[in-house]
Amino acid sequence: MNNKPFTAGVIGASGYAGQELIQLLARHPRLRLEFATSEAEAGRVLPGGGRYIAVADAPLDAVDLVFSCLPAGDSGEWALRAAAAGAAVVDLSSDLRGGSAGAVYGLPELWRERVRGARVIANPGCYPTAALLALAPVVRAGLIDSHRPVIIDAASGVTGAGRSAKRELLFGEVAEEYRAYGVGNRHRHVPELATALARLGAAPSFVFTPHLLPVRRGILETIYLPLRERLNGEAAWELWAESYAGEPCVEVLRNELPSLRTVVGRNVVAVGFTEVDLDSPMLLVVAAVDNLLKGAAGQAVQNANLMLGFPETEGLPV
Amino acid sequence: MNNKPFTAGVIGASGYAGQELIQLLARHPRLRLEFATSEAEAGRVLPGGGRYIAVADAPLDAVDLVFSCLPAGDSGEWALRAAAAGAAVVDLSSDLRGGSAGAVYGLPELWRERVRGARVIANPGCYPTAALLALAPVVRAGLIDSHRPVIIDAASGVTGAGRSAKRELLFGEVAEEYRAYGVGNRHRHVPELATALARLGAAPSFVFTPHLLPVRRGILETIYLPLRERLNGEAAWELWAESYAGEPCVEVLRNELPSLRTVVGRNVVAVGFTEVDLDSPMLLVVAAVDNLLKGAAGQAVQNANLMLGFPETEGLPV
Amino acid sequence: MNNKPFTAGVIGASGYAGQELIQLLARHPRLRLEFATSEAEAGRVLPGGGRYIAVADAPLDAVDLVFSCLPAGDSGEWALRAAAAGAAVVDLSSDLRGGSAGAVYGLPELWRERVRGARVIANPGCYPTAALLALAPVVRAGLIDSHRPVIIDAASGVTGAGRSAKRELLFGEVAEEYRAYGVGNRHRHVPELATALARLGAAPSFVFTPHLLPVRRGILETIYLPLRERLNGEAAWELWAESYAGEPCVEVLRNELPSLRTVVGRNVVAVGFTEVDLDSPMLLVVAAVDNLLKGAAGQAVQNANLMLGFPETEGLPV
Amino acid sequence: MNNKPFTAGVIGASGYAGQELIQLLARHPRLRLEFATSEAEAGRVLPGGGRYIAVADAPLDAVDLVFSCLPAGDSGEWALRAAAAGAAVVDLSSDLRGGSAGAVYGLPELWRERVRGARVIANPGCYPTAALLALAPVVRAGLIDSHRPVIIDAASGVTGAGRSAKRELLFGEVAEEYRAYGVGNRHRHVPELATALARLGAAPSFVFTPHLLPVRRGILETIYLPLRERLNGEAAWELWAESYAGEPCVEVLRNELPSLRTVVGRNVVAVGFTEVDLDSPMLLVVAAVDNLLKGAAGQAVQNANLMLGFPETEGLPV
Repeated sequence: MNNKPFTAGVIGASGYAGQELIQLLARHPRLRLEFATSEAEAGRVLPGGGRYIAVADAPLDAVDLVFSCLPAGDSGEWALRAAAAGAAVVDLSSDLRGGSAGAVYGLPELWRERVRGARVIANPGCYPTAALLALAPVVRAGLIDSHRPVIIDAASGVTGAGRSAKRELLFGEVAEEYRAYGVGNRHRHVPELATALARLGAAPSFVFTPHLLPVRRGILETIYLPLRERLNGEAAWELWAESYAGEPCVEVLRNELPSLRTVVGRNVVAVGFTEVDLDSPMLLVVAAVDNLLKGAAGQAVQNANLMLGFPETEGLPV
Repeated sequence: MNNKPFTAGVIGASGYAGQELIQLLARHPRLRLEFATSEAEAGRVLPGGGRYIAVADAPLDAVDLVFSCLPAGDSGEWALRAAAAGAAVVDLSSDLRGGSAGAVYGLPELWRERVRGARVIANPGCYPTAALLALAPVVRAGLIDSHRPVIIDAASGVTGAGRSAKRELLFGEVAEEYRAYGVGNRHRHVPELATALARLGAAPSFVFTPHLLPVRRGILETIYLPLRERLNGEAAWELWAESYAGEPCVEVLRNELPSLRTVVGRNVVAVGFTEVDLDSPMLLVVAAVDNLLKGAAGQAVQNANLMLGFPETEGLPV
Repeated sequence: MNNKPFTAGVIGASGYAGQELIQLLARHPRLRLEFATSEAEAGRVLPGGGRYIAVADAPLDAVDLVFSCLPAGDSGEWALRAAAAGAAVVDLSSDLRGGSAGAVYGLPELWRERVRGARVIANPGCYPTAALLALAPVVRAGLIDSHRPVIIDAASGVTGAGRSAKRELLFGEVAEEYRAYGVGNRHRHVPELATALARLGAAPSFVFTPHLLPVRRGILETIYLPLRERLNGEAAWELWAESYAGEPCVEVLRNELPSLRTVVGRNVVAVGFTEVDLDSPMLLVVAAVDNLLKGAAGQAVQNANLMLGFPETEGLPV
Repeated sequence: MNNKPFTAGVIGASGYAGQELIQLLARHPRLRLEFATSEAEAGRVLPGGGRYIAVADAPLDAVDLVFSCLPAGDSGEWALRAAAAGAAVVDLSSDLRGGSAGAVYGLPELWRERVRGARVIANPGCYPTAALLALAPVVRAGLIDSHRPVIIDAASGVTGAGRSAKRELLFGEVAEEYRAYGVGNRHRHVPELATALARLGAAPSFVFTPHLLPVRRGILETIYLPLRERLNGEAAWELWAESYAGEPCVEVLRNELPSLRTVVGRNVVAVGFTEVDLDSPMLLVVAAVDNLLKGAAGQAVQNANLMLGFPETEGLPV
């Protein structure tokens, strides 16, 4: 491989994930941002030079790679248009996560080889990224007690809800507030998570309850895991640590639980464990992720690095 | 006066000031809320019973008093319509603050008798309320050095900017941020303040710079006051304390400066003083106000109390 | 009963609960605050007149009622000293919650008659208050599936952690952060909750996981309730609404979940419901409480009102 | 110069500046962190390996460079001890800013050659760094009207106040609050700023009023600058842009004002301008700085880079 940088474009760069991606690309040693589209910012200067353009003017056939960060509904379509124009593609929306149009679900720690060979990546959602990496070792080991559901109680900062001007996301509404939403397994990430868990083997039943936190970024998932047999914190650490040995973007904590501060600004999922002393075995797993990095733009770059043959964490803070 | 409660209606109750007003009225011993209009909330139950209705259905002629909290541009018109229907009116917008249609500028501490006799009140803006009560004693005493401008450096919580869904007011934009806006005397409160100061006597030249704070409510104004002769903190306290003796809604602090915490939840402006030791005399005056109470809904009720002959602070936390 | 107000004292008034209590007492129509102790504030003026004094100077025998808000370890002892001096007593610490020295656990909605007859009240903890009122109807009805644990995932604002100067509670540590603590049923409220549940009948096994929220006040508890048979949201509402019919300090929501905003500033616990569609029946119950009001100082006043024969919500915002 | 990295130690690494420094050093390509002292963290692992040690065990003579981040009072003394042991030294406290013991005031944009030749650097305070870079061009040009004071109204995030456990810095005290402190030119940065301005030429009289913001990091200074003659925003931009041409750590904005978001995470001071239309000429200058980077740890690294002959922004985000 020669050292000429590959070129990239970002479609739909107005939102928080798009903005994060642009900042990552500005510092990426092997990817050069050729264009970014934003109707709102059209004409303004990009970090690193160049200007925002309208999406209709995006030269899809002139770049090696396209990231699509448009709203769900539009994003997948543009992603496929870019693929048809010859670019490798990472779609950050949920449009292609079901696997339509041959898109590969881009969670490298679980399906790295498929990512390496892909031309179109469906970048996972932020909540599922943390939940899947937290659950995979125990699902694969067949240790979950299938008679009791896994409880996933999650909390996310507001950038996970996007940058559209909605009253419910105003500072005056969110500050000094905390509330559940999408309860009763009605959040759009529930089917995504269920499908991905099924790919790992026997899919456990689960309840997923997200909450909105008055912070800008970061997700914490407190997971109540019913087990077939007891597993103390140390044994849990061993199982997860072994599963993720050598993984640069998973941090397995020992005798410690992650918090938002553990992960914000980093392209990692961090997990920690505590046994709960009950009649029936239960393990408490806490997972944390920066929703804009490993939960969105960072993971998109990680996937792009794999598709293009770069070192996996090139240009990423870990 | 008999004890039958007077009846009131609120037009435009969706915003922060309207919501605050509805809560105040629910606890007011002499005013009964008959209706509140909100297109967004139409059909939902009001605190204290009744339901939100559409503004077009507001029975303006069936109540003793109407508060109008619509956006500027619409509010004044509806206020005058209510006045024509026979109601006493308090308009919380800026539409009538210039005195059009005979509206009285409703700052009771400075112009109480005019308020008492009014049928239409233009309720002052939040920033001017604090600035005028902070400046009035020294303006009336003729102590300001007219060769140097008064500097009013102000900061406001986001509810002062309204409840419309604007990107710049999202939690993701406002949290961990602080910025100036409307600089160079371009804020819409500048002419209101200038006009009101002129009514007090010789109008000083001033610079007003508002900033947006990542808090929900409260305004702090740090005022640099150039004086013709030195005035130390204690002498300043005497001048202000004497000016506002007996005023229930002004708190003059001695050897202490107010902060947001001093005033949030209370219908008061609090002021404090420190002398600055320079060649030319300067007094630092810090004023604080809850933008939704004494800066909006609370002052509206205070004005209504005066118009209807109630005790001035009836139903108000002071 | 004549109209002469009863007199009260507050021991340990420096913290958030003590400060809240002082504000409540300043507005209470039948209780007059005679003294408040605070080593830090000694000599400063109390709202409503009087001055803070040192605890050693507290005239325990000169008041009808004493509230003790000292830290756990000291508080119970002072409470008993006040009782020995002849005062009715409400202890806000955990010292007497196990029932020692004949103290009555003061949760009026569950044990009102015992509260009415008590001379010493152990005021419940903030987390247990919400959890107990959320769980009592279904525990009493015997509907919980005892083979699966109840999961109580809770989040609290920082005033619940007290006002001591600890690094972990600094703004710089708490803002933009969210973390679990006291996990694995190690929080000090776990035994209190277990004991109180046992008093209600068959005690379910449960897991309690608190988290620290970057807000000043308010607690939300998301409770995953395993049931013996299905109960949909409407049926749940009926069960809870009937259980709490006429209760002024419990708000049972229909087709809606409470959030912090529902309860902050009010002496209520609010609860709402959603069924979760799984193989084994599960109901999601969300409960919210203002940790300083119904979770501490407000409930203390509610208990005092009952002990002294006043209307139960006298002086309380509901 | 060969490529062997230089070695560095950090004394007093528990606080926010020390922690920031450690993170910067972990990514610095030419400086290797040999030790960091922290009584609180002693024994814990450092990022990049090694462990925190007690200050008494610091091998001052074994490193090329020592950063001292101890509290004022102790820091200067340890800095001089390190210098005596042969290390180049950057003291982040205020102890040596008056120039004692031959320390050079380390503001590279104004006194770069002195920094290059220094062995002991007194790293400037956060407020003065922003104020000096904002004022230097106009002070040097002799444009300030000496008959009127410069007003510097400033606001800082809480990490600027340190990480000691003080009640006034608790989340419960700082959130939803905003207050002035150190008013009347009593802040400890006032003499530092006066001394440094005097070094630039005719020192203007000024008033400096800091406020505490409910954000973690970032300082904004709103400066009211009385001029001898009018200077519009464009002319101001030209003057400042020319003064700072080629400076990597000063960003001069055109037709735009900086906010916290402009600078947080970057080792820069950003400045912008607006003319105020008054009888006597006034320019509004807004300056922003990340108090932990260009306001502390970042500037310390910038100074170290200069002392050791590295590129000035090596290892620094700009």
